[in-house]
Order: sequence, then C-alpha cells, then structure tokens
Amino acid sequence: MNATSPLHVIIMAAGKGTRMKSRRPKVLHPLAGKALLRHVLDTMQGLGAGAEATLVITGHEAGEVEAAVGPDARCVRQSPQLGTGHAVQQAVPHLPDDGVTLILNGDVPLTRLETAQALIQACAGQHLALLTISLDDATGYGRIVRDALGGIRAIVEHKDATPEQRHIREVYTGMMAAPTAWLKQAVMALGNDNAQGEFYLTDIVATAVAQGVAVRSAHPAEAVEVLGVNSPLQLAELERLFQRQQALALMEAGVRLADPARIDVRGTLSCGQDVSIDIGCVFEGRVVLGDNVRIDAHCVLADCEIASGTHVSAFCHIDGARVGADALIGPYARLRPGADLAADVRVGNFVEIKNSRLARGAKANHLAYLGDATVGERVNFGAGSITANYDGVNKHPTVIEDDVLVGSNCVLIAPVRLGAGATIGGGSIISKDAPPGQLSIARTRQVSLSHWHRPVKKPKTDAAG
Amino acid sequence: MNATSPLHVIIMAAGKGTRMKSRRPKVLHPLAGKALLRHVLDTMQGLGAGAEATLVITGHEAGEVEAAVGPDARCVRQSPQLGTGHAVQQAVPHLPDDGVTLILNGDVPLTRLETAQALIQACAGQHLALLTISLDDATGYGRIVRDALGGIRAIVEHKDATPEQRHIREVYTGMMAAPTAWLKQAVMALGNDNAQGEFYLTDIVATAVAQGVAVRSAHPAEAVEVLGVNSPLQLAELERLFQRQQALALMEAGVRLADPARIDVRGTLSCGQDVSIDIGCVFEGRVVLGDNVRIDAHCVLADCEIASGTHVSAFCHIDGARVGADALIGPYARLRPGADLAADVRVGNFVEIKNSRLARGAKANHLAYLGDATVGERVNFGAGSITANYDGVNKHPTVIEDDVLVGSNCVLIAPVRLGAGATIGGGSIISKDAPPGQLSIARTRQVSLSHWHRPVKKPKTDAAG
Amino acid sequence: MNATSPLHVIIMAAGKGTRMKSRRPKVLHPLAGKALLRHVLDTMQGLGAGAEATLVITGHEAGEVEAAVGPDARCVRQSPQLGTGHAVQQAVPHLPDDGVTLILNGDVPLTRLETAQALIQACAGQHLALLTISLDDATGYGRIVRDALGGIRAIVEHKDATPEQRHIREVYTGMMAAPTAWLKQAVMALGNDNAQGEFYLTDIVATAVAQGVAVRSAHPAEAVEVLGVNSPLQLAELERLFQRQQALALMEAGVRLADPARIDVRGTLSCGQDVSIDIGCVFEGRVVLGDNVRIDAHCVLADCEIASGTHVSAFCHIDGARVGADALIGPYARLRPGADLAADVRVGNFVEIKNSRLARGAKANHLAYLGDATVGERVNFGAGSITANYDGVNKHPTVIEDDVLVGSNCVLIAPVRLGAGATIGGGSIISKDAPPGQLSIARTRQVSLSHWHRPVKKPKTDAAG
Repeated sequence: MNATSPLHVIIMAAGKGTRMKSRRPKVLHPLAGKALLRHVLDTMQGLGAGAEATLVITGHEAGEVEAAVGPDARCVRQSPQLGTGHAVQQAVPHLPDDGVTLILNGDVPLTRLETAQALIQACAGQHLALLTISLDDATGYGRIVRDALGGIRAIVEHKDATPEQRHIREVYTGMMAAPTAWLKQAVMALGNDNAQGEFYLTDIVATAVAQGVAVRSAHPAEAVEVLGVNSPLQLAELERLFQRQQALALMEAGVRLADPARIDVRGTLSCGQDVSIDIGCVFEGRVVLGDNVRIDAHCVLADCEIASGTHVSAFCHIDGARVGADALIGPYARLRPGADLAADVRVGNFVEIKNSRLARGAKANHLAYLGDATVGERVNFGAGSITANYDGVNKHPTVIEDDVLVGSNCVLIAPVRLGAGATIGGGSIISKDAPPGQLSIARTRQVSLSHWHRPVKKPKTDAAG
Repeated sequence: MNATSPLHVIIMAAGKGTRMKSRRPKVLHPLAGKALLRHVLDTMQGLGAGAEATLVITGHEAGEVEAAVGPDARCVRQSPQLGTGHAVQQAVPHLPDDGVTLILNGDVPLTRLETAQALIQACAGQHLALLTISLDDATGYGRIVRDALGGIRAIVEHKDATPEQRHIREVYTGMMAAPTAWLKQAVMALGNDNAQGEFYLTDIVATAVAQGVAVRSAHPAEAVEVLGVNSPLQLAELERLFQRQQALALMEAGVRLADPARIDVRGTLSCGQDVSIDIGCVFEGRVVLGDNVRIDAHCVLADCEIASGTHVSAFCHIDGARVGADALIGPYARLRPGADLAADVRVGNFVEIKNSRLARGAKANHLAYLGDATVGERVNFGAGSITANYDGVNKHPTVIEDDVLVGSNCVLIAPVRLGAGATIGGGSIISKDAPPGQLSIARTRQVSLSHWHRPVKKPKTDAAG
Repeated sequence: MNATSPLHVIIMAAGKGTRMKSRRPKVLHPLAGKALLRHVLDTMQGLGAGAEATLVITGHEAGEVEAAVGPDARCVRQSPQLGTGHAVQQAVPHLPDDGVTLILNGDVPLTRLETAQALIQACAGQHLALLTISLDDATGYGRIVRDALGGIRAIVEHKDATPEQRHIREVYTGMMAAPTAWLKQAVMALGNDNAQGEFYLTDIVATAVAQGVAVRSAHPAEAVEVLGVNSPLQLAELERLFQRQQALALMEAGVRLADPARIDVRGTLSCGQDVSIDIGCVFEGRVVLGDNVRIDAHCVLADCEIASGTHVSAFCHIDGARVGADALIGPYARLRPGADLAADVRVGNFVEIKNSRLARGAKANHLAYLGDATVGERVNFGAGSITANYDGVNKHPTVIEDDVLVGSNCVLIAPVRLGAGATIGGGSIISKDAPPGQLSIARTRQVSLSHWHRPVKKPKTDAAG
C-alpha cells in the first residue's frame, strides 16, 4: 500500500463513433485482431487494480460493450451521454474516498503500462496529473497553458485559444489521474453552462487551480500511445503503426523479415532463433515458431506451433495445428484445427488435414484430404486419396498404421483400419479393414472397346427447334 | 444553352510515348484496369458534349486508339505529328464557329469533371482559359508569367526562362479552354519557326495577349489531376496515387481496410455497412459486397456480388459469380463465371465451381469440381468428387436434387440426374440417373492378396547395361 | 598492366554480427536471396583481380564462411579478432610488393564496381584513397578532417570529435585503396594502445599524413552503396532499397509493375517487351519472361522461362519449369522442376506438374497431378486424374500420346502408355497400356439399393456408458 492505494481505473467507452459508420460500437472495432477496449483492459491489468476497481463507462450499444468486457471490469452505464464530465459522474458513486483514480480512453488502444504508471506517479496521491504531449501541429487540440514557473494553469480548447495560445505545442491527451476524494467532489461540482449543454471533464483543471491543487503532467514515450480512433482511416493508420512496432520488435529479437511493411501480427508471435518470414504473411492468435523455421510468401498462420527446422512453403493456411521439427509443408497446404504432425512429415500442395495425427515421416504430398485420421510412421498417402470420414450425419475415424502405402485416388470409408505395412491399390474404395502387410485392392478389370466412337460436336439448335 | 454552348472537347492522343518502351500506344495503357484515354472519356461524359462533339486526335498506332475509342468520340488523325498546335489544327475543320472548345490530354487520366467545368467557366465564352497549378518544384515546366495586375502575359518554357522566371512556381498543365471561333483562327495562324519545326499550341497565349483577348486561369483541386504518364514509373506512381484515393474513399464510407496501401480496385467496388477487407486483395470490374461481408487476405474478386454476412476466406479467386448471404467461401475457393450460390452455401478448399447453381445450404467443402451443374438445397458434394461435364467435344448438364449426398471421389458423368435424397457411394462412377432416396453405388469387391510383395528398389543400371 | 597492377582485394568477413542474433555468420545472411559476401564477390569479379588475388578475412564461423566462398577467393583466418587493422595484418603476408590493394567489407553488399574502380583510380598506385560520403546526419560515423587546401588530415571517430568536428558531414565508409607495399608496412606498424586493445585500420591515415603520402578520396554514386548490415532491421531496410532499385530498373526497361513496392526479385529477372507484373509477386533465381507475358497477383516464380504471350494467373507457384508461348497457366497452378510445357498449353487450378513434358495444346485444367509423364498434343487430362508414378520405391513413366482424352478421376498406374487418340473412361484405373483410338475403361456396374437407409445421428454417449 502506498499513497496512491487503492487505485481505481475509469475507462471511457460510451461513445458512438459516428465517423466509423458502423453498427458496431467504436471501442469494439479490432486493432490487430483485438478490440480497442480490450487492448486498454489487457495493458492496464498490469496496474493491479483488479476487475472490481476497473470501471468501464458504457453508453452507445452498452449491452454489446458490456458483453465484450465480461468479468474483467465493472460496467457503468451513462445514459444519456452528456459529455466526459458526465461520464465520470456516473462512475463516482462506485469510488471509495481514498486512493487515486486513473481515467483512460477505450478508443486509445496503445497507451503503455509505463505511461499509466508515470501518470499515477505524477498524481502522487495529491495532485491532479494530466497526460500531455507536444505535437508539431497542435491544431484542433486543447492546449496546456502554463504559468511562468511552468505550473499548469488551464486547458484551453483550440476554438477558445488566443493567437498566442495557438502557438502552444503541448496538448492534453484525454488521460488523467487524480486523488479519488478530490475527483469526486470536483466532477460532481461541474456545470454544463455551455452551448452543447455538456459536462466537460477538463473543467476540473480550473477547479484544481482555484482550489490550489497542483496540476502536474506526465508524458507518453511515443505519440502513438495517445492516438485515438474516430474513423476507419484513423483505425487503419493506427493498425499500420502498431504492425510497424511489432515488426521492429521481431527484428530486434533476431527474426528476419523480407519486408517489415508486409507482415501482420494479430496476437502473439513467438519466434526461436534464425526464423525468417517472407512477404505477405499474416499471423493470428498465438503462433509459436521454433529455431530455423522458414515461412515463405503469403502464408496465413493462426493458433499454431511449428517446431524447429520446418519449412512452410508459400500459400499455406494453418489454423489450430501443430507441426513437428524438420517438416516440409506446402505450398498450398491447409492444416485445420486438430492437425497434429510429427517430425519429418511432408504435406504437399492442395492437401487438407483436419483433426488428424500424422506420425514421424508420414507423407501426403498431393491433392488429398485427411480428416479424423490417425496416420502411422512413414505412411505414404497417395495423390487424390481421401478419408471419407463423414457419412452425412456422423464422423468416423480412420486408422492407418505404420508403413502403409495408400495408392492414388483411393477412398477410405471410415471407420476403417489399414494394418501395418498394408498396400492399397490405386483407385480402391476401401470400406473394410485391410490386413497388415497385404495388398488390398478394389478394382475392376480394364477393357478396351475397339468399335467405340467418340461423341461428335452437337450442332447448335435454334430456339425454333 | 449558355454562353459556352455548344461545347467541343479535343483530347490529345496522338503521342507515341517512347519512354513507355511499349508496342501499345501510350494512351491505351491501363490505370486501375482502364486505359488512360478511357478515364478521360468517361469523366468528361459529364460535360454533356456528346460523342459528336468530342474529338480525339490520334496518330501513333491510330487504328488501335480509334478502335478503343469506338463510338464514344470522333477520331481525327494527325499525320505526321508536328506538335500540339498542329494536332489542334487537324481538329479545327470539325469545329463550329460558336461556343467553346476544351482541350485535354489523353495521357492525363485523373482530371476531375469539376476542374474541366471550372476551366470552361474561366473561359466564359470569351477568354482564353489555362489550367495552371503551383508546384513546389517547377523545374522543367512552362512557367505562367503574369503582369503586375495578375494578368497572364505568357507561358515561358523552362529552357527559355530567365533566372527570375525560374522562380515562378505556377505552371501550365497542358489543358485549356477557348472560344471556338477565336481558337480556330489562332491555331491556324501558328508558325513553326523553331528548332524542331513544330507548331506549339502554347504560342496562342502570345496571340491572345497581342489581340487583347484576356487570358484567365483555373486550377485543379489536387496536383494528381494534372499528372501525365510518360513512363512505366510515372504510370506506377499514378496508379498508387489513384489506389490511395480509392482506399480513402472506401474508408470514408465506413469500409475497414487492414492496410490502405495494399488494396487494388480496378473498376467499381460498392460496399455495404461494416465490410472489412484484409491485406493484398484485388478487385476488378464491378464488385458489390453486402453488409458485414468479410474478405480475408489475398483474395482476387472480379465482376461478382457477395451478399450480406458472407465470409470469403484467404486465397479465393472469384470471377463472374454471385454468392448469397451468410455463405462461407474458401480458403482457396475458385468461383468462375456463372457460379451462382444461394444463401448459407459452403465452398471449401481447392474447389472449383463454374456455370453452376447451388441452392441454399449446399456444400462442396473439399477438392471438388462442379461444372454446368444444378445443385439442390442441403446437398453435400463429397471431397474429390467431380462433375464430368465435358465429353471432349460437348458440355452436358448435371442435376443434383435436394438433399443428395454425394460421397468422396465420385464421378458424375453428365448428362445425369441424381434424384432428391439420393445417396451416392464413395468412389462411384455414376453414368445413369440415380433414383430418389436410394443408395446408388458402383463399386468393386475389396480383396486382399496375402502373398503379394511390394516392389523393390530398382538398381541403378549403367549405360553399358 | 597499369600503375595499379597487380590488384589485390581484401574483403573483411570475420565479424560475428552480434546484433543479428543469429547462429549464421553475418556475411552469409541473404540480401535478395544471395549472401551479403557473395554480392561483394560477384560485383568485384569485374575488377579482374582473380580468385588468387582476392583475400577474404574470415573469423567468426570461419569454416562456414570459407565453404560459402568456395574457389572464388582465398580465405585468410583472423583468430583472435583484434580489430580491422589486425584483420589486414593477417592478409599482408599474402600480398606482393607491388600494385594496389583494395579493402572492402563483406557486410556492405551494394557497392558498385564503378565505385571500386573510382577508389582504385584515386589511389593511382601511390596515394592512400578513402571512400567517403557526405551524410545529412553523420552522428556516430568517423569524420573526414581536411585542411584548408582540402587535403585529408585525419579520420576522427565520433566519440573523439570536437564539437566543431561533429559538424563535419563527410564520413569514412570503411573502404580504401592503397599501394600494396606501403599498406604492408603501414598496417604492420599499427599499435593497439587503446582501451579495447584493438588494431584500427583507420590509424594508417595518420601514418600516411606523417609520411607525406597523399590521402585522396573517392565517393559512391549513391548512399546505398556504403550501407552495412548489422541487424535484421538494417538487413530489411537494405533489402527494400535494393528491391526498389530493381523495380526502377525493370520499369526503366519498360516492364509495367502494378506496385513497385510489392515485387521481390531475388536473382535475375529478364523481361521482353510489354511484360506486366501484378502485385505481390516473388521472383527467385533466373527467370525469363517473353514479350507480352502477364503475371497476375501473388505468383511465385523461380528458375523458369515463360515464353511470349503467356498469361500466368494469380497464385501460381512455378519452379524449375519452362512454359511455351500463348499458354494459360493457373490460377493456383504448381509447376515443379522438369515441367516443360509447349505453346498453347493450359494448366488450370489445383494442378501439379512435375518432371513432365506437355506438347502443344495439351490441357490439364482441374485438380490433377502429372508426374514423370510425356503428354502429347491436344491431350485433355481430366479433372481429378492422376499419374501414379510412384510405387513406393521406384518412379515410373507415363506416356500419353497425341489426342488422348483422359476422363475425370482416373488413375494411370505407371509404367503405362495410352495410344494416340485413346479415350479413358471417367474413374478408370488404368494399369496396362490402352490401345490407340479405343475407349478403355475399368468401371463397375452402377446399382441402386431401394431398401437402403441412411445412417442416423449417433446419440452422444456419456462417459458412464
């Protein structure tokens, strides 16, 4: 416990975001695959305030936002929405009389934990602390007016600023921290005597100055931390900035990227040593790549683990799968959830694998489908062959034991088991178990018809015909 | 009818474009999938001049350009090509003695209608109006020299400019409007007393000044409107600027783009609400996306309509197809012309569909080909199954009625009909109609050969063998 | 022979490159698919120094670097590594007493031959010549200090520079040329009386000044020529700069690129006239594209030749193949090594071709695999059909003579020959030769079971069951 305890966090998430032109509430739009608001919640978990002490102000599409927040915070509805001060007024009854309250924005996703901590530290349990930043072009922002000693005297909106004040480059970012007890009385005393009839949270700066409460400031390490999202363009710009950050972090860790501007990571990408990633790849969810993994151009990888030394060729789509070491995957391989491939496996072009285990050294190199199958070591699953795992209502398992050779264009009608070392003749429809070591075959005698003639081109018939 | 009527438009399209290093005439090179000249023709249709009053000056590969213009304008050949003034001289016999003539460039594709209208307005039926623009770096361009009162006195080529004139940032863009009667006498009076022996259209500025005809100016809203194409690099740069414009317009309308720098629209892309488009997608022709449509990475969509709620997964190639609502398409689905998919359809990986209708809820999830087929509701078309629609000379239809289950790796030899509720056994070759509700099957008894031995590795034989 | 003969070249390649965070020696990291050191070796072959006169200083992972150098240069090990001067000390015993020695860096891949020649010329067999460049921000670099007459007096490291010297924008690039005899004595006289105990090559500038040897300079045409690689970020940045250079060169030669920022050439791409390349394409090794070739979006082409007029549709993967004129390839076609396609061939979606020749007009349009096959003119290889070229241990050939029609989902069990004009019925397993002109078929009679019932949904059983 220190001077700032207990800590409460208020996250503003009531806005409609009209410029998004979306039915979805603005704070639920995804950045790098995760809702804006969720970025804030996840980052600020590090403050240790806890779900009970985190208050999300909801309003527009409140139900949808509250469902997205789930158990990670308490939601407080603001209805109608009468400005930022009014939003905090809704939260105040839920705040204690001691400690510090931090106010963040649900549509500003990239604020760092360290920046929030700096803001709390600037508050020090007794001051009003504002997060401010200096911009080259501050047009449109509320300027931070300081006195001769550097003390903050006011936030002046752009439209109200004097020509001299418009030269001020330091602006308010919308985030602040304050002693909770003081904040409570200050926000409840806010007026709405303005053209919009709204309660502005920034008016408490004047209150602080009037009451002799010192107004301090903290600053983010980077401007990207205070960028908000109000339009699809701003969302896209922030996405690219965030992707750039992630690409830099990957390269800093030794990952080789063919083009840092053409990788998208929407989740966590963990890489071993000497990983290289070619252009146009997309990573979603939790992806783990081992040492010396090579991912070629235009691959999409989601929630998967690829062990060391494996080469994923171009145009692969891998989701919910595990791949062992030194495997060769693709090009054009599709690994679906439950695909679990051991070391030295080869999966080639136009092959789909779903909910199947392939043991070491198994191969399915061409135009094949393996579903609900258990495939033994060194099995060769032929081109065009298919596990018919679905009878229209139920899914059934296929077991292919070690060293089986399945010929081309076979159909294995599940449930079925191919014994170790069995060979399945090309084109066979296998509907009962194949004994180990034997050739199983279902094939018709080939005949040739010498008097047969090919069809001839049909004449085009007129409608009258 | 106003002071500027009738309006005639001359479009310069005779140039060779040597730096393009192409056999194709420069004005026929595509920007965003459409010829440069066609951009100009399409935009300027809004002026209402009509095909008869639009004159395209052709020269280099005139026949090819004229074929591309078609009935949308009259073409006037310039042969030999002796400069811009000479080009207009060829058009003059086709102009009336009243109204206004607007002169545009066929290799400047992004001039807006509003800019052309502003130029006509500056002409006001009596002045010479030049389209000019101020550039940060005007090196190489013809400078607009004005007198103390701001009146335009001359266009001075860069090479002829005094050091003082080289500081002028306002330049001529190559577009002008003039009273037709005056233009006719002015261009016919042009001389070619210069090193190249060419007739320069810009010399009519001197004529106007000498004759006391006022020279006015109009300006484009953006510099991109006056950028011409002289090389593959300039073409690529303009392509990216235009793609950026289109991406901004899409986002302005609420479309979410994962990366505005990685979308290419070559035609018209119409989007409903809450559409999201991932990286690397290409749209060609006329594409319509309904509400909540999601297009994943690296898709190519041409001339297609995708109804609301449908999810197109990565690597799809859709051309000339319609997809109903709430469908799941891909990854790696290929929909070819005539694919017409109802709501709730699923088309999975490595599936090709051509000229076929799939009714509500039909599925073809894996490695299949449907051509010239009519597929009923809730049909499940098995993995690896194929409609053999082509006998080598003729295409035949396949009809699959509601609720049919087609097993894996089947061949349906068209023409053939599968009755409602029929089931087709995996691996069957179906060459005659299948009765409704029954299991149809063509399958050989499976046998196993216990004394069979696998082939052994052939020894490498020497050439001497 | 001139004043600079014989020429020796020393390439520094001993560094570890700790910031690369890689097990691979830094100079072996690839830029555009080729090791950094190999770029230097290949470019400098133009100097004509020869393998015997090219000395690569190895150290970190020396064995790996030496293997990569192969016969193209002599390798000299530096162990331990005590600085750049120490590195050159290892080379000196291998140098003659006449001629000139050029010192380059193995991690600076894009230095041009002309720049190296300019440096040798500045040396003129008698001076110490430094490659220098002026940077807008020289922070961190060693400054070139010149006297009032412009003569170079010293290289001053950034940390040792006076505030005034820090304003100098001209910096040393790490490359120099010197008379060999002088260089030998100068480097052997170097001391290591400094905090690191290293021998700095740059100290020979002081030696030259002291001895009255003139110090001259030469300059690269572009800054990119002297950029070194110390981190994955620098490697990626240099990759993009190099790709940009290559894209500009292609466009300069008339190739139309949809986006110059989205093409990757890792090797040599030779293009005829009127070639167009869409977004996201990757070229590796030696690729030759004929006139009017069109490559659509997201293709990967390696070591292949595509003849004039051929259209490669999106998502193709071509490696080690040849394609004739006016062919249609893709989308999603995979051509593997040994695929040799004549003119007018069509290869469609989800088709894999390996080590096979297709004669003029042959088609394989859908979901097929051709391996070790010889395919005649006008053959139509049906959807889903497969050459079963592998019996588990040996590969066998398939011969398909002119005008054969192979139906859908056939398996051709190699070795097998289909005679000219043969027709293979859909779904046939062909294990013996098919006579010319006849219909060969292996198909079972289709039966329908009227009393058959579809499986019903299995009840979910509890664990207790």
